Amino acid sequence: MTRFTELMAFQRDTEALSQIAGRLGWDQETVMPRGAAAQRGDEMAAIEAVLHARRTDARIADWLDQARPGDAAGRRALELINRSYRRNACIAAPLASEIARTTSVAQGLWAQARAQDDVALFLPTLQKVLSLKREAGQALSAGGFGADAYDALLDDYEPGATASSIAAMFDRMRPRLVALRERVLGASTQPAALHGRFPHAAQLALAREMADAFGYDWNRGRLDLAVHPFSSGSGDDVRITTRVVENDPFNCLYSTLHETGHACYEQGIAPAHRLTPLGQGVSMGVHESQSRIYENQLGRSRAFTHWLFGRMRAHADGFTPASADDFYATVNRVQPGFIRTEADEIQYNLHVMMRFDLERALVDGSLAAGELEQAWNQRFEKDFGLAVDRPSNGMLQDVHWSVGLFGYFPTYTLGNVYAGCLHQALRKDVPELDSSLARGVAKPATEWLRERLHQHGALFRPADLIEQACGQAPTPEPLLDYLEAKFGQIYRL
Amino acid sequence: MTRFTELMAFQRDTEALSQIAGRLGWDQETVMPRGAAAQRGDEMAAIEAVLHARRTDARIADWLDQARPGDAAGRRALELINRSYRRNACIAAPLASEIARTTSVAQGLWAQARAQDDVALFLPTLQKVLSLKREAGQALSAGGFGADAYDALLDDYEPGATASSIAAMFDRMRPRLVALRERVLGASTQPAALHGRFPHAAQLALAREMADAFGYDWNRGRLDLAVHPFSSGSGDDVRITTRVVENDPFNCLYSTLHETGHACYEQGIAPAHRLTPLGQGVSMGVHESQSRIYENQLGRSRAFTHWLFGRMRAHADGFTPASADDFYATVNRVQPGFIRTEADEIQYNLHVMMRFDLERALVDGSLAAGELEQAWNQRFEKDFGLAVDRPSNGMLQDVHWSVGLFGYFPTYTLGNVYAGCLHQALRKDVPELDSSLARGVAKPATEWLRERLHQHGALFRPADLIEQACGQAPTPEPLLDYLEAKFGQIYRL
Repeated sequence: MTRFTELMAFQRDTEALSQIAGRLGWDQETVMPRGAAAQRGDEMAAIEAVLHARRTDARIADWLDQARPGDAAGRRALELINRSYRRNACIAAPLASEIARTTSVAQGLWAQARAQDDVALFLPTLQKVLSLKREAGQALSAGGFGADAYDALLDDYEPGATASSIAAMFDRMRPRLVALRERVLGASTQPAALHGRFPHAAQLALAREMADAFGYDWNRGRLDLAVHPFSSGSGDDVRITTRVVENDPFNCLYSTLHETGHACYEQGIAPAHRLTPLGQGVSMGVHESQSRIYENQLGRSRAFTHWLFGRMRAHADGFTPASADDFYATVNRVQPGFIRTEADEIQYNLHVMMRFDLERALVDGSLAAGELEQAWNQRFEKDFGLAVDRPSNGMLQDVHWSVGLFGYFPTYTLGNVYAGCLHQALRKDVPELDSSLARGVAKPATEWLRERLHQHGALFRPADLIEQACGQAPTPEPLLDYLEAKFGQIYRL
Repeated sequence: MTRFTELMAFQRDTEALSQIAGRLGWDQETVMPRGAAAQRGDEMAAIEAVLHARRTDARIADWLDQARPGDAAGRRALELINRSYRRNACIAAPLASEIARTTSVAQGLWAQARAQDDVALFLPTLQKVLSLKREAGQALSAGGFGADAYDALLDDYEPGATASSIAAMFDRMRPRLVALRERVLGASTQPAALHGRFPHAAQLALAREMADAFGYDWNRGRLDLAVHPFSSGSGDDVRITTRVVENDPFNCLYSTLHETGHACYEQGIAPAHRLTPLGQGVSMGVHESQSRIYENQLGRSRAFTHWLFGRMRAHADGFTPASADDFYATVNRVQPGFIRTEADEIQYNLHVMMRFDLERALVDGSLAAGELEQAWNQRFEKDFGLAVDRPSNGMLQDVHWSVGLFGYFPTYTLGNVYAGCLHQALRKDVPELDSSLARGVAKPATEWLRERLHQHGALFRPADLIEQACGQAPTPEPLLDYLEAKFGQIYRL
C-alpha cells in the first residue's frame, strides 16, 4: 500500500465517523426521546473526541509528507486533509472539548431564553461561548489561518474569504438593496397576504411534490419534521426536515425547497468522491447558493409559483389570492419585519449585513456581550426603521451564536450572490426553463447545476467553482439586477 | 486519578460509542433510506473498527493490572472489561471490520432473497458470513473461550453456557413438549381462529396501551415500525419496534409486548450503571426471559387476555371469538406451522432446538451452507410433520444467520426456561397479580422484576442472577409444568 492509499483509507473511516456524528444530530432533532438528552450529550462527546483525535493523529503529518497522489482529485484531497489537520492542531484538545461541551448546553439555554424573552438568562452562556470561540479564532489566526480571530473563524465556513472582502462586497450591495426596498414599500400596489386553511397532511404532501419537482432522490433521503428545518448527511444518505404551521404554508413549502437545494447538492456529488474529503459541499457559501437558488430564483419564480398555485388549490380549500399572478406577488411580498428567516429576498441580505457587523465587533472585543442587546436594537431601528419590541424579535432570534457559529452569517448573503451568478448563467443556457417550471418540473435546473457544480463536491475551491460554473468571477451585480427586475415587475415600479 | 477511575472513564466513552453503533442499527431498520445501505456498511465498519481498537487498547491490560476497585460493582466491571478485552484481542482487527461490513450488507440481501424465495441469491452471502464467524469462533476458542468454535460463539450471547449443557437441557425438555403437543393437537375441542378487521392505526394504538400496561417509559423510548420487531439501546434511550398485519393483530400486539419486555429490562437498570459495563442486560438468555415472560406467562395469561378482549372490542369492529374465554383459547391456539416467530409456547422451543442442531453442524463444518436447505426441510418434516413449501417458510425465514448470529438461537429457549422459573417465583410473591392483569395493569410484575432482576444490569452472572431472583437454580421443570397446566386447561386434556 502506498502512503497515499494508507492516508486515504484512514481518512475514509474518519469521513464515515463524521457521517455518523451527523446522523446522531439528525436523530436528536427528529426522533430522539426527550429523556435521552443527557445520555446523548455523553454519546456526542465520545464521538467528537474520537474525531478530534483522528483529525490530529500524528501519522497524518508523515503521510502528507510522503504521499504522492496520482491526479488532481488526489492533490485536492491532500490539500483538504492538510488544512483540516493544521486547523485542528491549532486547537488544544481541552479547548476543543470545552467548546463542544459548552455549545451543546448553550443551545438549550438559548431556546429557553428566547421562549421567555430573557436576555439575562442567556448572557453568561453567550459570554462564555464568545470567549471560547475568540480563543479558538486567535489560535487559528496565530497558526496562519486568517489575519485575525474573525477571519480565522470565517475561514472555517468559507475558505478563502476575509472579513474585508465581504465588507467591501456588502458596501457595494447595500445602497441598491436599500433603494429597492424604499421603492417597493412605497409602491401604490401592495400584494395581499395569504388567507386560508392548509391542513398539516396537505402541506407535507405538497412539500414532497416540490422536492420531487427538483429531483430530490427519495431512495437516498427522507423528509421528517423538526423544530428548525435542516438538511443532513452526504453521499447516499441525505435527509431533509421541515416544519408545519397550519395558517402559514409557505413556511413548510419554502423551507422544504431550501433544504432540497442543500440536499440535491450533496446527492449530486460524484459517487467516486463518497467518503473522501471531496465528498461534501465545498463551503457554506456554495451550499447556501444551492438552497437559495432552489428556494428563491427558481421556487419563487413567476413560472413555478403559477404551478404551485394550482397545486395549492388542489390540496387546500379555497384561499386568497385567487389568481396565479396575485399569488406570485403574495409569495414575494415585501414587508417590514423583525425576523431574518421570514424576510423577503431583498431585506434578507440587510439582516445578514447587520449581524456581520455586530459579530465582528463581538469577536474583536469592541462590543461586549452585555452591550449586544442595545447595539442590536439601535442598529435594527437604523437599518429597518422598526423598534425591536422584545428580544425574541431581536438578538435572541437566531440560534447561531449560542452554538458558536461566529463568522457563519455572511455566508448566507455570499450564497445569495453566488446564486445570482449561477441563475444568470443557468437562464442563458436553459432558455426554456420557465415553460418547464410552469409545469412543476425543475429537474432541468438540477441537471444543469449537477453538471456545473454538484458533481464536483469539494474538488475546486469555492470562488473557482463558481467562476468555472458561470464562466466569470462572482460579483453581486447579477443578484442585484435580478432583484430589481423581479420586484420592479411585481410592484410595477 | 486512580487507575480504576482512568479505566472507567475510558470505558465510559467506549460504552457511549457502542450505544451509537446500536442507534445506527435502529436507524438502519426503521428510517434509513434504502439507497444508503452500502454507505451504511462503511459507516458501521468504521465505528466497529473504533470500538474494536478501544476494546483491545493495550492500556487496558495495564489498567486491569493496577486498578483497585472499591466495591463489588467495581470488581464485576473489571471482570467484564477483562472478558471483553480478552475476547476482542482474539479477533484480528481486519476480521472484526470485515464481519461488520459483510453482515451490514448481508441483511439486505437476505431480505431480498426471502422476498423472492431465492436461496441461490442468499447462498454466497451465507457462506461468507459463516466462514467469517467460524474463523472468529475458532480464534476465540483458541484464546480460551469455549471448547470449540460453536461454544465460543454461544459464550458471546450467554456467558458460561456450553453446547453440551444446552443439548442436555433440550433433551430433557423435548419428550414432554412433544407429548404435550400431541395431546393438544389431538384434543376434541380446538380453539377458533381470530376473524375480523383490525385497522393499522387501531393496532398501533392498542400496542401502545399494552406497553403502557407494563410500565414502558415513553419519555426514554419510542415505538416505530420495522420489518422484524426488535428493541434497541440502553439507559435513557431504549426504543422498540413492531409490525402491522391487518388481519393478524396478534403479530403486532405480542411482538410489541415481547420488545417491551426487553426494553423494560434495559430501562429498569439502576442509573448508576449507565454507560458502565453493568449498564445493560447481562446475557441474551436473561434478556429473552424478560421478553418471553411479558409476552407469554403474563401477556397470554387468562387474566390479561380478558382485559385485552375488551380493548380489542373497543378498538375494532365486531370479531370472533365472542367470549373472553374463547378469546383466551384463540390467543393460545396451537397449530402446525412453519414460522418460529408465529409459533405457540409449546412448539416455539421445538423450532429453536432444530436451529440449534443445524447451526452447530454449520459451524463445525459437518453441514455445508449449500446443503442447508435440504437438511432444514428434512429435519422440519421429521420434527413438525410438514413439508416445507418454500424457502421463506424454511431456511430463509429468520434474519439471524445473515447477520452472523450463530449461537444465538438457543438463548430463546434458555430465556423461556428462565422465564418459567421467574414466573413461578413471581406468582408466589404476588398472589393478587391476576386481579391486576385482568384490569390491564401489569406494573406489579414489572416492579417485582425490576427489584429482583432489572436494576442489577450485568452486576451478577446470568445463572446466579436467576437463582438469586427465584431462590433456586434454574431448571426447565417450572416451564414444562406451567405449559402442561395451561394447555391442559385450555384444551381440557
